[in-house]
Amino acid sequence: MKLFDLFRRSRETTSANAAKQRLQVLLTLERSAMTGPDFLPLMQRELLDVIKKYVEIDDGKVKVEFERDQSMSMLAVNIELPPDMLGKPV
Amino acid sequence: MKLFDLFRRSRETTSANAAKQRLQVLLTLERSAMTGPDFLPLMQRELLDVIKKYVEIDDGKVKVEFERDQSMSMLAVNIELPPDMLGKPV
Repeated sequence: MKLFDLFRRSRETTSANAAKQRLQVLLTLERSAMTGPDFLPLMQRELLDVIKKYVEIDDGKVKVEFERDQSMSMLAVNIELPPDMLGKPV
Repeated sequence: MKLFDLFRRSRETTSANAAKQRLQVLLTLERSAMTGPDFLPLMQRELLDVIKKYVEIDDGKVKVEFERDQSMSMLAVNIELPPDMLGKPV
């Protein structure tokens, strides 16, 4: 996966980040016409609720960015995870 | 958002894609130690269920890729959306 290599390189260059455990959720909506309400921000709360079933999340360690132009919108949710996080037993 | 520009450029270069309406969900988990089960694939079904509340999805138009190395795992869900999709009223 091309994106996999891209993200891995960006992680290697920021050694300060290397020790941090982080989950990034990136939603990219590409539309031919940018009409109507954008549903990405509406989904954010429910997506986080799903993730919380699998890993402990401190809401204070969640950073959300949203950007939109005439043909694309992007929601980025960056979650810093606790060091001892190994995923709750499901 | 740096990633926003990156994705926009990649969309512009592939004009064939420009007309398509697409939603990409990218989950990147960066861990200091790659131990224990990976919970990204476990979340996939529930994340799709959340998205289906906001937009119609044809399961035949969903492409999933998963990749993992010793410090990072990535789940990419690419969803081609119907042309008339404007998001269901919530």
